[in-house]
Amino acid sequence: MVTCNSPLGFLTFMITLMKPQKNIRINSGRLTSRLAGLANVGSTRLAFTAQDRQGRDFVMAMVSEAGLQAHIDPAANIIVRHDGKTKAPAISCGSHIDTVPDGGSYDGILGCLAGIECLQTIQEAQIETKHPFEVIIFSNEEGQSFSGLTGSRAMVGLLDIDELQEQDKEGRTLADALWSFGGNPEALSQAVRTSQEICAYIELHVEQGGILEKSEKSIGVVEGIVGIQYLEVTFTGIPNHAGTTPMDLRRDALVAASQFVFTVDRTIRTKEFCRVGTVGSMHITPNSRNIIPSEVTMTVDLRDPKMEAIDRTIDYLHQQAKEICLNPLTGLNFKVIEQIQPATADLKLISLIEAVSKDLGLSKQKMPSGAGHDAQMMARIAPMGMIFVPSEGGVSHSNNEFTSQTDCANGANVLLHSMLELDCKE
Amino acid sequence: MVTCNSPLGFLTFMITLMKPQKNIRINSGRLTSRLAGLANVGSTRLAFTAQDRQGRDFVMAMVSEAGLQAHIDPAANIIVRHDGKTKAPAISCGSHIDTVPDGGSYDGILGCLAGIECLQTIQEAQIETKHPFEVIIFSNEEGQSFSGLTGSRAMVGLLDIDELQEQDKEGRTLADALWSFGGNPEALSQAVRTSQEICAYIELHVEQGGILEKSEKSIGVVEGIVGIQYLEVTFTGIPNHAGTTPMDLRRDALVAASQFVFTVDRTIRTKEFCRVGTVGSMHITPNSRNIIPSEVTMTVDLRDPKMEAIDRTIDYLHQQAKEICLNPLTGLNFKVIEQIQPATADLKLISLIEAVSKDLGLSKQKMPSGAGHDAQMMARIAPMGMIFVPSEGGVSHSNNEFTSQTDCANGANVLLHSMLELDCKE
Repeated sequence: MVTCNSPLGFLTFMITLMKPQKNIRINSGRLTSRLAGLANVGSTRLAFTAQDRQGRDFVMAMVSEAGLQAHIDPAANIIVRHDGKTKAPAISCGSHIDTVPDGGSYDGILGCLAGIECLQTIQEAQIETKHPFEVIIFSNEEGQSFSGLTGSRAMVGLLDIDELQEQDKEGRTLADALWSFGGNPEALSQAVRTSQEICAYIELHVEQGGILEKSEKSIGVVEGIVGIQYLEVTFTGIPNHAGTTPMDLRRDALVAASQFVFTVDRTIRTKEFCRVGTVGSMHITPNSRNIIPSEVTMTVDLRDPKMEAIDRTIDYLHQQAKEICLNPLTGLNFKVIEQIQPATADLKLISLIEAVSKDLGLSKQKMPSGAGHDAQMMARIAPMGMIFVPSEGGVSHSNNEFTSQTDCANGANVLLHSMLELDCKE
Repeated sequence: MVTCNSPLGFLTFMITLMKPQKNIRINSGRLTSRLAGLANVGSTRLAFTAQDRQGRDFVMAMVSEAGLQAHIDPAANIIVRHDGKTKAPAISCGSHIDTVPDGGSYDGILGCLAGIECLQTIQEAQIETKHPFEVIIFSNEEGQSFSGLTGSRAMVGLLDIDELQEQDKEGRTLADALWSFGGNPEALSQAVRTSQEICAYIELHVEQGGILEKSEKSIGVVEGIVGIQYLEVTFTGIPNHAGTTPMDLRRDALVAASQFVFTVDRTIRTKEFCRVGTVGSMHITPNSRNIIPSEVTMTVDLRDPKMEAIDRTIDYLHQQAKEICLNPLTGLNFKVIEQIQPATADLKLISLIEAVSKDLGLSKQKMPSGAGHDAQMMARIAPMGMIFVPSEGGVSHSNNEFTSQTDCANGANVLLHSMLELDCKE
């Protein structure tokens, strides 16, 4: 057994640590093959659907094949564990395997499968760690059916009990979804963990943007994750016949909503407000070609590293929406819904990831994360770090998402050695 | 038996015609109760759905209760018939009972149920007509699942055989829909009728606009029906992550589509183009709050009594769409799909409906129809007339659609006496 806290003294420790442990690498072919296998399950695996279940079953089989153990916590998070030889708090990594509609094969998935690969590599190399190592596969990160980050919010105590009654489009509650995915909503508090149990959380993820590709760097060392504010904006008009209603008597909710979509885009582009803003979804009622639309509800996604910038944007957009509602005359419901606070990465973990990347001969750069991640939640209970690898063409949340085998392996090796280094240092 | 062509001579004819026949009226309470009964089936009865079937079953039971006979033609039109004493061509009325989503209780329905009421009234009064009288309940007027006016287009020979393979959202073909609603797509040509079989077609309908209410008139005498052109316009962008894609690298299909919706509205309001224009439905892909929309397809409904005005509008909007596609950079598919030619009412029928309204002591005015109707098709094979009654608040294609009991009865009585007068004149 190789161990960094060997009772045989510092010399033995230095020899065992500095040689074989430093040289181990994950099995890149195996990781690639497993990524492809999960992708074969289908590119739309919305959380808590039959497709998500297939994905989770695939991962459970993989865990078993890797000779690892996993359990499902009350929030339906899958926790894969490699025991340490002490009762020290765990060194955790992880991400999610649920996807957006027509999502890619890497977003979230790489962090989970690379984590399993790291644990399997450690076991195969017979490395005995002081801390337990964990891969946490968080439930419902993407928030397509219910509000997102379900698993990571539950783990940091931010999943309100009332939210269990939230319903998806089929009328199923989050509680029911958790029950049927191996969770236990009645024991939700038992999913909560603290810094006593987890001493560090590192998430490997594809960048989902084009910064690394442009700068030709292999590794992104994340300094912080943007805050996100979701709005739900509804314009209400009057349904009427498209043929018999004169233009000047119309109260067309879609004409009002369209002006607002354009206003959001134009406002954010001034660069005086938050960094990015997107109207991604829209629901039109009755959505019939010969009826004037009576109601349009849309989501607005606003992001910035500073919540003040987001708040300023909300105030401005609300004012703009009120003005739009005067012509065409429509009702307005401007709701500020989910908010995710920005999170900063732990300075020591930033330095560690930088150092490990350098040791592995990989070029790197510090950068922010424009996407939200489970790491954002985990930062509330433990020092948090994130490792980014390049996304081809900056494309993500799409079937065309791609990260090369080399980049996936690079990221996994940085994750592996960051965890091993932490095990020695902590 | 009361008849206008009595062999007993002109005197008998004048006595029998001018007295009892002139004084008969439809049973207003019965008509109202039947309208309420059909409304109870549900306000969303899209053509060829289970709800439409329920509505049709309700009407067939009503026909039977009224002591009338009905058959279903190959295009799934229900034809209710009162035999005449000669083999003269039929005097027909009719409309449709399928609805838009959350439609009202009068649009189309009044014309069908009032027609049945007229035939029942004639039978109860033992009036023997020279011509057969018919109520045609046309299939799929609204065109929510398949292209609309299915039944009336089939009857005038304008339902192309290829269209039978058109599919609804569930992948069912129009042919299958016709089969399962008592039609026979293989014998579609047998649904075609000519002026040899129908000598006049009169459709009673709610106005669906606010002109009669504003002018406080009881009866609208339709001079013509607008032409309709449907467009299907698709903007194609690139799906990407809402958090990681800088504003200046986005190709957001919804931002482009929104500009076009606003452009359509603004263009039509200049009054230099067609009379009305509506974007009523929109389909957004992937329609997820944290993905930049990659594709938006919308319908555009353009109407005018003159096709030239519609054609000019299409050219202008196409040019505008091309300009919008330059910023944000998006692909464009601008498709001119269904077209319905304008139709003019028969001058003799216009005069007849005016005269009958006057005889019945009802105020009236000539007006255009902004909505399309089965009458638009029927005008191709027979002299066509339309009777409008007021819509409260001009509201239609909505659950709030309302026409008073008095107005429904007025319209039905104008229909009854217009058909009886025609029977004597033709």
